Amino acid sequence: MVPRVIFGRGSFNQLSDILAPKRLNINAPFIFLVDDVFKSNSWLTSRIPLSYDDKIIYISAAEEPKTSQVDDLVEEIILSNKERPSGIIGIGGGTLLDLAKAVSIMLTNEGEAKDYQGWDLVKNKAIYHVGIPTISGTGAEVSRTTVLTGPTRKLGINSDYTPFDQVVLDSELLKDVPNDQWFYTGMDCFIHCVESLQGTYINTFSQSYGEMALSLCKEVFLEDNLTSKESQEKLMMASWHGGMSIVYSQVGVAHAMSYGLSYLLGTKHGIGNCIVFDHLEEFYPEGVKLFKQMKSKHNVVLPQGICSKLSDKEFDTMIDIALDLEPLWENALGKNWKKTITRKKLKSLYIKM
Amino acid sequence: MVPRVIFGRGSFNQLSDILAPKRLNINAPFIFLVDDVFKSNSWLTSRIPLSYDDKIIYISAAEEPKTSQVDDLVEEIILSNKERPSGIIGIGGGTLLDLAKAVSIMLTNEGEAKDYQGWDLVKNKAIYHVGIPTISGTGAEVSRTTVLTGPTRKLGINSDYTPFDQVVLDSELLKDVPNDQWFYTGMDCFIHCVESLQGTYINTFSQSYGEMALSLCKEVFLEDNLTSKESQEKLMMASWHGGMSIVYSQVGVAHAMSYGLSYLLGTKHGIGNCIVFDHLEEFYPEGVKLFKQMKSKHNVVLPQGICSKLSDKEFDTMIDIALDLEPLWENALGKNWKKTITRKKLKSLYIKM
Repeated sequence: MVPRVIFGRGSFNQLSDILAPKRLNINAPFIFLVDDVFKSNSWLTSRIPLSYDDKIIYISAAEEPKTSQVDDLVEEIILSNKERPSGIIGIGGGTLLDLAKAVSIMLTNEGEAKDYQGWDLVKNKAIYHVGIPTISGTGAEVSRTTVLTGPTRKLGINSDYTPFDQVVLDSELLKDVPNDQWFYTGMDCFIHCVESLQGTYINTFSQSYGEMALSLCKEVFLEDNLTSKESQEKLMMASWHGGMSIVYSQVGVAHAMSYGLSYLLGTKHGIGNCIVFDHLEEFYPEGVKLFKQMKSKHNVVLPQGICSKLSDKEFDTMIDIALDLEPLWENALGKNWKKTITRKKLKSLYIKM
Repeated sequence: MVPRVIFGRGSFNQLSDILAPKRLNINAPFIFLVDDVFKSNSWLTSRIPLSYDDKIIYISAAEEPKTSQVDDLVEEIILSNKERPSGIIGIGGGTLLDLAKAVSIMLTNEGEAKDYQGWDLVKNKAIYHVGIPTISGTGAEVSRTTVLTGPTRKLGINSDYTPFDQVVLDSELLKDVPNDQWFYTGMDCFIHCVESLQGTYINTFSQSYGEMALSLCKEVFLEDNLTSKESQEKLMMASWHGGMSIVYSQVGVAHAMSYGLSYLLGTKHGIGNCIVFDHLEEFYPEGVKLFKQMKSKHNVVLPQGICSKLSDKEFDTMIDIALDLEPLWENALGKNWKKTITRKKLKSLYIKM
């Protein structure tokens, strides 16, 4: 679990106090990986505390994070600094947070990021790393994984060294998230909860976190009585609790299939989950019903027919990626999941999307 | 926050695997502080992994933990071992968990435990410490305090070094808790939640944890459809979330007044909270109503008239202790709490108990 978290409107202003005691020496900088939507946003960037050789690297979140991107960042950081950094600070959504986690791991572990995709393959403690979400729902701020697209698969680096050492939850950073993105990322949390709560891996620990997050999602996306500040705070907590829920359980069908879309088509995780989940009534009847209510209430129109022109080979690629995620299927449908989830079944679902 | 937690029925059996990598060397033992109710209980004690100079110290939880007791334990541990321990493992309820936290701090910090009662006075990182609750409700397994009775006051050692490095949540360890104790300790959690949720310090973070814990308490103590295993697991999670809720907020009137009882009369924390809360309708009308329902459903009869024979001087002592806890009163009643909470008012409440 994340050992230190600060919560509060405006808590971003305390970043300087948080980082100061963690500076190793003047040659060991803090590297800030920041979503490039903030590039000319001085409201945020002017408050990033830079001293000595500290540096901001702006990164586009238009694509899902890649193992090669992590390797490039690590090389850039090593080549341009005298010493290993004092810390890596990720400021952004799931993409930036996952990049920050992966870079901090790869700065102290040999080889390439793709070698560590899987469970508990990381050998050395990561560099001190801090996560500051500017959009909520993914749970990346609390999870022990960093999901990366590698040369052969989309899979997380899951390890005890992955979680952030410090998280700053300042809901004010969410104030300018566009409506559609707010919905897609929020639904990532909602779908986590449905998949976790309805999964066979569920236990009282994950259940209590999942139910709390689900109830917050319903408040945020179905009720009308919250101020935008309250919505931001509640979605921030929903993301946190939803992430905690899956740390000790697992996601399910929507995530498995959405990874396929993302690998082949580069579909972003949030919207990909929505596109898939919209067609999963047979697996999650109650959840999908609520999802459709939320979609309609927020006037969100999902892309249609994104798989309509794919070749058989492309379908096969997506199906391979999805089927490879065995724990997700087992969680969703039990040990005998292979009886119902055939390649044909998956193709029939993908074709609808 | 606690960085590592393991949850699951039977997870106590993994203790050996958890501790092994933390052993510094063969002269640096693990010291197990264990509630002495388990002294001849081989079901539990036979599973405590002892190697080299590792040692079990049985401790009675009949009295609230004292600063002098911590100092004695630290002295005993230092004198009887060649090196500082590899770790301190507390196995028991709030008393044992608080002792384990305090001992691990005082093994690396000079002076006496009483010198550290307060906020952020601890200078050095504590010895590695593990908490294993065998009763649930106090939140001691997750909190950043260790509440001790000192020569002049009952107050916690609140610090970033106080929380456990590892917690083991094995609900099976709760199976033999006597009914009354189960109720008193569970109510500690329930009262935390009421005080936190109704307090002026409340924020979305604490609120979401508090609501989750409150809802679990209601399930455990007011509904009839849980198996004993489910009740144990749910109360274990309620205690965890209730503890998290007050980490970022504060308790209130019941805790302030109960500290007075405890200091003067040695009343244990759980039952003390119940005795006080039973008379707090004017501060927590809804909470006290629910409490009375739970009390009646579980056939719990609270002691009456425990203050009936006290002298004025004794009342003054209790009132001094209670009034000293300013943050609790401010949380409960706002910045102007001194207008309503007079010495006379407190005496009139204590007299009823």
